[in-house]
Formats: sequence, structure tokens, C-alpha cells
Amino acid sequence: MNDLTSMVRPESVAVVGATPKPGKIGHTIFNNVINSGYQGKIFPINPKEKEIAGLQAYPAVSEVPEQVDMAVIAVPAARVLDVAEDCGRAGVKSLAVITAGFKEVGSEGLELEKRLVQTCKNYGMRMLGPNVVGLIDTHTPINASFSATFPKKGEIAFLSQSGAMLVAILDWSIAVGLGFSKVVSLGNKADLSEIDFIEEAANDPNTKVILCYIEDIVDGPRFLDVASRAARKKPVIVIKSGTSQAGAQAASSHTGALAGSDLAYDVAFRQCGIIRAKSMTELFDLAVAFAKAPVPKGNRVAIVTNSGGPGIIATDNVEAMGLTMARFEKETIDELRENLPAESNIYNPVDVLGDAKADRYRFALQKVCADPNVDSVVVLMCPVGVTQPIETTEAILEMREAFPDKPIFGAYMGGETLAGGANMLAKAGVPCFTFPEPAIASISGLVHYNEVLRTPEEDSAADLPNIDRKGVKAIFYDVLKDNRLVLLGSETAEIAKCYGIPAAPVALATSPDEAVEEAEKMGFPVVLKVASPKIMHKTDVGGVKIGLQTAEEVRQAYIEIMDNVHGYMPQAVIYGIEVQKMMPKGTELIIGMTRDVQFGPLIAFGLGGIYVNLLKDVSFRLARGLTAREIENMLRETKAYTLLRGYRGEKPRDMAALVDVIRRVAALVNDFPEIAEMDINPVFAYEDGLSALDIKITIS
Amino acid sequence: MNDLTSMVRPESVAVVGATPKPGKIGHTIFNNVINSGYQGKIFPINPKEKEIAGLQAYPAVSEVPEQVDMAVIAVPAARVLDVAEDCGRAGVKSLAVITAGFKEVGSEGLELEKRLVQTCKNYGMRMLGPNVVGLIDTHTPINASFSATFPKKGEIAFLSQSGAMLVAILDWSIAVGLGFSKVVSLGNKADLSEIDFIEEAANDPNTKVILCYIEDIVDGPRFLDVASRAARKKPVIVIKSGTSQAGAQAASSHTGALAGSDLAYDVAFRQCGIIRAKSMTELFDLAVAFAKAPVPKGNRVAIVTNSGGPGIIATDNVEAMGLTMARFEKETIDELRENLPAESNIYNPVDVLGDAKADRYRFALQKVCADPNVDSVVVLMCPVGVTQPIETTEAILEMREAFPDKPIFGAYMGGETLAGGANMLAKAGVPCFTFPEPAIASISGLVHYNEVLRTPEEDSAADLPNIDRKGVKAIFYDVLKDNRLVLLGSETAEIAKCYGIPAAPVALATSPDEAVEEAEKMGFPVVLKVASPKIMHKTDVGGVKIGLQTAEEVRQAYIEIMDNVHGYMPQAVIYGIEVQKMMPKGTELIIGMTRDVQFGPLIAFGLGGIYVNLLKDVSFRLARGLTAREIENMLRETKAYTLLRGYRGEKPRDMAALVDVIRRVAALVNDFPEIAEMDINPVFAYEDGLSALDIKITIS
Repeated sequence: MNDLTSMVRPESVAVVGATPKPGKIGHTIFNNVINSGYQGKIFPINPKEKEIAGLQAYPAVSEVPEQVDMAVIAVPAARVLDVAEDCGRAGVKSLAVITAGFKEVGSEGLELEKRLVQTCKNYGMRMLGPNVVGLIDTHTPINASFSATFPKKGEIAFLSQSGAMLVAILDWSIAVGLGFSKVVSLGNKADLSEIDFIEEAANDPNTKVILCYIEDIVDGPRFLDVASRAARKKPVIVIKSGTSQAGAQAASSHTGALAGSDLAYDVAFRQCGIIRAKSMTELFDLAVAFAKAPVPKGNRVAIVTNSGGPGIIATDNVEAMGLTMARFEKETIDELRENLPAESNIYNPVDVLGDAKADRYRFALQKVCADPNVDSVVVLMCPVGVTQPIETTEAILEMREAFPDKPIFGAYMGGETLAGGANMLAKAGVPCFTFPEPAIASISGLVHYNEVLRTPEEDSAADLPNIDRKGVKAIFYDVLKDNRLVLLGSETAEIAKCYGIPAAPVALATSPDEAVEEAEKMGFPVVLKVASPKIMHKTDVGGVKIGLQTAEEVRQAYIEIMDNVHGYMPQAVIYGIEVQKMMPKGTELIIGMTRDVQFGPLIAFGLGGIYVNLLKDVSFRLARGLTAREIENMLRETKAYTLLRGYRGEKPRDMAALVDVIRRVAALVNDFPEIAEMDINPVFAYEDGLSALDIKITIS
Repeated sequence: MNDLTSMVRPESVAVVGATPKPGKIGHTIFNNVINSGYQGKIFPINPKEKEIAGLQAYPAVSEVPEQVDMAVIAVPAARVLDVAEDCGRAGVKSLAVITAGFKEVGSEGLELEKRLVQTCKNYGMRMLGPNVVGLIDTHTPINASFSATFPKKGEIAFLSQSGAMLVAILDWSIAVGLGFSKVVSLGNKADLSEIDFIEEAANDPNTKVILCYIEDIVDGPRFLDVASRAARKKPVIVIKSGTSQAGAQAASSHTGALAGSDLAYDVAFRQCGIIRAKSMTELFDLAVAFAKAPVPKGNRVAIVTNSGGPGIIATDNVEAMGLTMARFEKETIDELRENLPAESNIYNPVDVLGDAKADRYRFALQKVCADPNVDSVVVLMCPVGVTQPIETTEAILEMREAFPDKPIFGAYMGGETLAGGANMLAKAGVPCFTFPEPAIASISGLVHYNEVLRTPEEDSAADLPNIDRKGVKAIFYDVLKDNRLVLLGSETAEIAKCYGIPAAPVALATSPDEAVEEAEKMGFPVVLKVASPKIMHKTDVGGVKIGLQTAEEVRQAYIEIMDNVHGYMPQAVIYGIEVQKMMPKGTELIIGMTRDVQFGPLIAFGLGGIYVNLLKDVSFRLARGLTAREIENMLRETKAYTLLRGYRGEKPRDMAALVDVIRRVAALVNDFPEIAEMDINPVFAYEDGLSALDIKITIS
């Protein structure tokens, strides 16, 4: 863990570029530090001033007679390096470099930025920026930024790669009453990045939720490590804009073509338990939900409403969001029936009717919250004549006290009439919306996070015996010596064997006699295929013969294939003919791997065969840390899973063997980063075991 | 068309149940009529009063010495029938029955409601309700409801099946400044329904957008007729809650099982050009967009921003919503390059940078709006120090004037700092949001509607020669006489022939000799299948033999099938053996039909074969009014389409023949409502023509 204490809770701060002249950025920052109520020591640094705002000014940080924890630097780019050097000599622990004009302006700026990073390294300083708005911690408190807005104190940490976005959100947060524990502008991320601040916020007792706006992730593996750990401590919600350059376009494999450009981020976030928001609205709705509401024990939602229509809309939404409408205990239903008017709906959604005053809401809410089958509650209110918004809100707040484990959300559908109640609810920390949909969406986010918390930690590497890394290395050595990047079928079959992946036997024959010998060794029937890395579509050039039953057929096929290939592609280098044992037909699957720039190997699983790219029935996971449990989830996401479980009366396929094989493929591609792409298509799944038929591996 | 003038623009209104006593619903309604500024004559009806609020009261409507256009009835349910009778005698044109206590309270209420409808019919009166809040027209103006809120005058008609929802929305509308042309509470829809008011609003010059909240549709075919016409005049946006009872659960066919319970509504809305909102927020966002902005000519969006991050988010959203980022003309790019700072992004999204004041925004906006490749524009603003929200808003409003055909939307990301500008923008009629996503979603709605408007009207029945209805009737007659609901293969093949659907020849043979004779007539190879409506899975009982090449094989197969079936299912009635010509293998498709309670036959098309329910690659359309163009859209929605166009080097399949066959299937199921379900699975598609292999028809 990085210790960013000197940055978020510094005992002393120097503002380099502080000035008494309004309009200058150094002026704004210096005033912000003072006005934020910062309790530590503040040192304005300006060679031209003796004193600024009553505080003694120093010509340089190194002239400050005391320890400086953090230096906030707001001087022109050309001077930043000298200032950093001076800070380093003075023993400053961390820098926040506000100044722009680095990487973002081109190669000269990049060069400057690299030297700045090197200076920090030389002196063991950590750096935020350059090119940032700064950072704010409302609990320290400190506003070491040029943001005009000092936000309300709260429990949400917000990390933003966009400075303007951060400023916008701060301005907006005041209008909507949203509070933050800290707000960090990430800027060019030359040293510290979202990874460091996620880690810091995860350990910060004042932060309950971590929000990030990011455009890219530089160190994928470290992000995954840190974010996975953080997500088990508190919710991490990310909005990621732009699209990853990984995969897709350039990929030649099936798996590569199936992995869309943004897919790796999606998979990575899901796999490490990060919640990905699809919009800014969702990001902040979720933030409020997590900051204010407990995480429910399950996905069963109860709705209490004074109007049928909104109740139906909410019910539709519960189902659409993958949640479940709670089914009440018999006692709950009986009590509701006895005590509510006859026309009420006493099942879920509970309709207390348009003439419900607060007492009727209170009664229904009490019974519903007490029901053990209810995990969370949404209270809908329409402003009918008799509605008592304030008193009903009081009832809701009583329930929140009485049932602290069950999140309660409000959807007050109205304007002026309900505003008093809605504000009261929101102020008391119960998320309140106008329409039911965002309330249900927020519950869905909470429920999803509950699943993250409940997933036991598991060791992905456990119990994977019989792995022969040396064998694989030997094969790669031969391939490289042969100056190839595409492996032959006999080589990939051998690699599969080294990693315990059951593959149909393949042997390379260089004469008809050898082909017959191999065929007899493995047993008939066999398939013959031309072995040439240059020939992509072997069938098209007459390079494949299937269903060969006898030695004579094999001999004949060998000669015919050679004739065909020489005829079609006289220039192709031919390594010989691959003899493969013909396996009985099973359920056709694909297992593949494509490599993402940020996150490394992505494993694909789905329906195989020639229509794999048409049907696109494929799910993905990062190979890194891939556990058996996660593989099972991966299988379940596909239609292939329905087939494997036994479709239309067929016997189920060997699921355990499939999980084992996917784990072995993941181990292989994790162990050998030189594997650029891999497709096993098809894999035949049987009632007992599997067989990998056609294994393609490309190395880089 | 219904003339609802007497209801939305009555020249005189009687309020039955008007009373001077506050707290009574009749008091509220009477006051609302008066206070809404209604210019027509108002007659309070109350036998106990001589005068109410200075207006002469009458003991009954029939006692009013003048013509009464509309009577608003707010007396206890038990008295409503008498009042309606009295109104009828008095020549009242329409009734708004506010009173509850009818269908919604059970069978007695339903009885009363039926008699009320009958009374209206007897006198040629139209009725709104019963069980409604009432109706409001802000242009007449009249508030014939008990809603405390009289909304702002506007261009949105809102029809709601939920009274409480309507009251809630009115309350909310004041808070957010939303205006309505009219607001109608539909209640029990005993006579008038959303259909009538959609029709009225479509012809109302004061209405630009029609919004509906509905829970069910009673008269599907009339809804489709009216809504299709209305949607070509102005946007109709519907939020439909609850789920249809059609399809799914009870269905025995593939097609039935694939059609989800809510699917028919989805398909119906799309097919008649209705925009279906997925949430309340979307409903009203779209309403504002349509009321305020022009419909763009195309889907090319330009973004102008003063900050990179939000620009990227907006770009992501443009792509996610199926819109396109506009590519500017060279001149536009050149002018932007020459006149914006060097660090600006001059491509789309145009980043005018954080230090942009209004003049720079104005310049960029002017160029972007003038570019012929831009159909709509989103202006993003973050409150950076120098931002000029008011002046920039003025620039946007100038562009709105200068380019009236291009919708401009604002996303002002901030709070207090930007509020003045945001309010000014919204007041001037430019939709303004906090975050970019809803702006892009609204543009997507506008673009979608542009497609509705641009789809030429087409006659679904044109050019469908060679249809033999009598032939089909004759077959159904025989089936009914035989007391069956499931047709034999020989019968369905015959029906296909009658409607010009190319099917593999099938003949029913009742002896081995006859089977051989039929096989020789149609030519080898042939397939033999047991003909028995009771045997669903023919293969499982040894009831199918394929690839029969000779007379001897056919003879042998006949005997074997009979033996097998008698062995497995001795009690099954066997009609004989079907001899079917074995067709060459083509691309396997399914064409099917399931019947929806509201909207009639739904046609399905997709990938066929035994995995049809697993792959679920199926698109649906209503058979009613199904045009060739719409069938082409239907094909395009499936993965099967990719196959048909020629996948992996295969030749394309006969798309024209496919469209023709689907039109013929639609004609067949439209012509014969007794066809309950129909599956053709598989249909083989060839380079030239098609062949329907296995046609199943169930009648009811």
C-alpha cells in the first residue's frame, strides 16, 4: 500500500506560486487552502513576496525552516522541474503539480514530464498530476485545488481523470446537496493514478463509496489487484469513457474478432467486483444509494404504493432489472388483509389506496419491513388529496431506524405538494427519486454489490496438477528456430498434452508410409490435413481428407492432398501432412484466447463450429486469477450451457472436465505471454470427457 | 373519426353534483371549471341549491333551458345511471363520469357499468370513464376534473389510464415548468379509450406530441389503425406497464414459445410507428424534445464542448444509441482550425477548450450548424472559471433561429454557476439537461421518429396472385369433420400449395404399394413419416425413415414404421404414412405464427432447425398490414440474414422468394382466424427458391 497520508492529510503544505494577486491560479489555490479550514501549517512560496495574507512567504520550499509534507505547484511549466528539484532537496513528501503544459501538449511536454517523474523518483516523492485541478479532502479538511467550490462533507470519494468534469460535478453537488469525502483530479497520471487513490480511499474510514471517472488504465494488472481488494471493502463504481484499442480490428482469430473493443474493460471490471455505471446519472444515483443505504441481504423487493399505476411500473422494473418481487409470509398477508381496506392490494405491490394517510402507510410498511422474505423496500407516493407527505416520511424514517439492514427508497411522484416530504427524506439519508425506475435501478446496484461481497475468495491456481512447462518451452524453441509464428497442429496438440488438455492425437507425417504408420498407431478412422502455416483455408485447396478407414485410403489421401496443394499453391512451404484421429462427434464448443493490451489474456467460451462468429454465443473472462467458480459463471452466460446441461432429452455433458480444461487453457496463456492468440474450435464435449479437435496457436 | 369536440371544447358544461360545500368532489370540479377560465356556459346541477357561486343551479340536466354539450357527473355510483338517463333525454352530447364504484369494484359494479354504456349508446352520447379524475384542455381552456393543479399551457397531450399517475404528473409538471395541451384521465375506458383521444389529439392543432400511460389495450386492431395514422401526423409516445397475457406459457409451437409475453405490444408499437418509452423519465424527456425541437433529417450528431471528458462520454453515447458522429466538410474543419486555438479539437467532438468564452462557442456552433453533414447538435458546458453561461446561451439561441431545421440540445454540467444559462435555454425552448446522456437519448428518439415519417406507406395486400381461399376452406372442412385440431402433413402441404408457398410434396399413403406409387410420382429420394396427430415426437417411436432411394426401401420402411409405432404406441390412431420428397439441404430457417389476444397473428422469422428455441434468433411482426418493406426489416434483425446474404463465401440465398413466402404466410393467417398456431420448421432457402419442409398447423 502506498502511504498517501502526506497528500490527503498533510501536516504542512507549501503553495508554490502563491500570490496576493487575484485572478492568478496561485492566488486561488492559496486562498482555497486557507479557506477550507486546513489546520496544518501553510507556507506561501514566492520570491517576490515577504508575506501573503498574513503568512510569511518564502522564496523557495528549501528555505522553509520546517518540514513540508506536500507542495502544491502552480508555476509556469518551464519552472516546475526546478521547483520539484528544490522540493526534493527540502525533503518534501509529495507534490501536487497543478501546472499544465506537459504530456498533453506534445512531445516536448512529454519529455519534460518524464524528467519530472525522474526527479520525484530520485527524491522518493510521490506526485499528483501534472495538469490537475488539485485535490480536496473534506475531513482533513483541505482544498488544495483551484476549484471555486468546496463541497459538502460526505462519504463519497470521487476520482476524475477530467478536470472540467470534476469542477462541473462539484458545482452540481452543491445544488443537489451531495457530499464528498474527497475529490481528486488525476490529470496526466504521470506518477499517481486512480489505482493509488482507490487504494487510499479503500482504507479511508471517512469514505464509504469510491467513484471514478476514467478514460484509460495504464497498469492493468495492478489496477486489477488493487481494485479487487478495494471492491471487497467498499463499493467501487466506475464510469469509463472512450474505447479500448485492444482486440477486434487487427485480430485474426475467432476469439479476437468476437471480443469487442470495450469488452476487456467490461470483463475486467466485473471480474474484480467493480460496478460499471452506464451514465453519469447512474454513477451518482448509485453513489447516493451506497452512501446512504445498507447493502440488502438479497434481491427480494417489496413495494408499498398509494396508487396502482406506479405500482405496476415499479413491478415491471423490478423484473426488468433482474430483481424479484418479494412473496410475503402468510402472517404478513393476513395482517394486511385484516387491517387495510378491502380494496387494497395486500400482495406485493401493496396498494394502500389513494385515501391512505400516514398511519396506513406506517402500518403496511411495518408489516412489510418485518417480513423475512423482504430484502428491500420502495415507497411510492402520489399526491392525492389526502396524502400526508411529511407524516408519511416520518413513518418511513421510523422504519429505517427499526430495520437498519433493509434499504428503503422513496419515489415521490409529484412536485410542490410532495417536495417537503421528499426533501425531508433525502436529508435524513433515504434516497428519494421522482419516478420509481431509478430507485429500482439503485437497489439493483446494491444487490449486485452484495453478490460481490458474498463471492468467497478462491485460489485460481489451486489443484492444477500435471503441468509440463518445460515441454511447452521446448516446442516454442523449435518454432522460433524455424522462424514461424503460427504453430502446426502436431505442435499445438503436443502443447495441449503438456497442460493436460485432452486433444485428439495429431502426428506430422512426411511420407505416405509415415502417415499410414501414424494412423495405425492412433487407430482408424483418421483425418489428413496439409501442414503448412501459410495455408489458412485448407479445405479450399483440397488439403483435407476425412473419414479415412484403412491404410490404403490414408496412402491414397496423402498423395491426393499433396497433388492438390501443389496444384493450387505451388509456392507454399509444406511441412508434411497431419494425421489426426477422427473423434466421435460431440457438442461443438469453442475455447479461445485473445490478449488485451491493458488486462492480458481474455478467455472465451461458447458455441463452436463454423458459425461461431455468426451466433456470437460467447462469454469472456480474464485469464488472470480465473477461478473454477468464475468459469462456472462464464459457462452459465452462454446458450451453449443449455446444450451442455442436456437439451431436448440429451444426456448432460461433462461439465467438470470442461471447467478443468478452461482452467488449464488459462494457466497456459498466463504462463506463456508469448502466446498472442489461441483458438480451440471445435472442442467436442461428451457425456464423459472432452476432446480438443483443432487447436490454433499464434505466438508473438 | 370520433368528434370529441363536445368534450374537449364544449360550448356548455353541466356539473352534476356541484355543491357549495368545500371538501366535496363536486365542489372541487365545479370550482375548477370556473377557475380554469372556461368561456362557455356553466350549469351547476343540484336539486338542493338555487344558486352556486353566483350561477343558477338546476335540479337536473333536463331542467336546463339550453343545450348542454358535456355533463361532468360526480354523484354517488347508485345515482349515476339515472343522471345519465336524464342527460340522454336532455340531448347532452358527452359525459365525463368521475364517480368510482364500477367495474373496478367487482361484478356488481361491472353490471352497473354495462348498463351505463348501454344508456349512452341509446342516446348517442359518448362517455369518458367512469372512475376518472376528469379531463383538462389548456387551450379551450377547461379543467373538468378534480385535479387541484391546472397545468401550464403547452403542446403535449397526456392520456393516462392511472388517475393517481395523472395527478402526480400534473403536480410535478408545475415544478419543472412542463406544459400540456390536454390531460385526460381514461379510467375504466367503458366507452372512450386512449384510441379515441389519440385520434382527437392527432387532429388537434394545439397538440404537437401525444403521450400515453396505458396498462392494457382492449381493441387491438382499432388501436393499430388509429395509432398508425396518428403517428404519421405527430409523435405518439407510450409507456405501457404490466405484461400481456398472450403467447408464451400455454403455447405449444416453437413460435409461441419464442414470443415473450410483452412481445406483441413491442412489435405492435414499433410497427405502427409508436415510440415506446422504457421509463417515466424517458417519456417526459422525449415529450419535451418533440415539443421543442424539430425532427432532424438524419442521425448525424455534432458535439461542441468546452471539456474533453464530457465530450468523450457524449461520443460514447452517440454510438451506443445507434447514432453517428457527424464527419465535417473540409471547409468546416479548415475554418475551425484557422479560428480556434491550436489545442482545440476541430473534429467532432469539437473541443473549444476550458478558456472558451461565448464568442468562441458562437463561432464553432455557427460553423458546425452550417455544415451539411450535421443533423443535430449537442452543446456541452462545464463551469470552468471563464465560462459565460448566459452569453453562450444567447449564442445557442441565435443558432436555433438561424438553423431552425436542426435540433440543438444543451447539457450544462453544473449547478448554481450554470443555472441562469440553463433556465434561459429551457425557457426559450431548447431542451437542457445536466448530463449529456439524456440529450443524446432524446436525439435518438427524434431520429427514430424521422424514420417513421420517412417510411413510405405501402399496401400490404398488393401483388399477391395465385391465392386459392376455397381450397383452404375445403381442407379445414375435412379436418373439422374429422374432429381434429392438428392438421396432417399432407393437409398442410396442400394448404401451402393453395397460398403459393413452395413446400416439399407430401402425400398420405395407407399401404406400402400406395407409398411406393407416391414416391415414384414425386421422385426419389423420399422420407416416410407416420401420420398421426397424437404422436408429437415421431422419431422417438421409430416413426420416421429418411433417405429412401428405391421402391423396395420405401416398401420396407413402411412396414418397419408401422411395426415400430404399433409396438411403442399401440393405442395411437394412425392415418397412414406420409411420403415426402426429400429436398436438397438449404439454409435452415423457421417461419411461424402465434396469435396474440390483442393484436392477432404475429409472424416469426429466424434460424430454423432443432436449436431454434436455444438460439432464439427470431424476429417478429404483426401479420396485419405486413408490407414487403417491413418483412425486409424483419429479416435484417436476425443473424439468419447474415447467412442468407452469403456467409463465409457461400452464394446468397433467394431473398425475394423468402419475402414473398412470408407475405403469403401472413395472408394465410390473416384470412383464416381459425389458424391458432403455425410453424414451418425448417424452411430450406436455396440460391434459387425455397422449400417448406415441415409445416405444422393447429386450428381452434
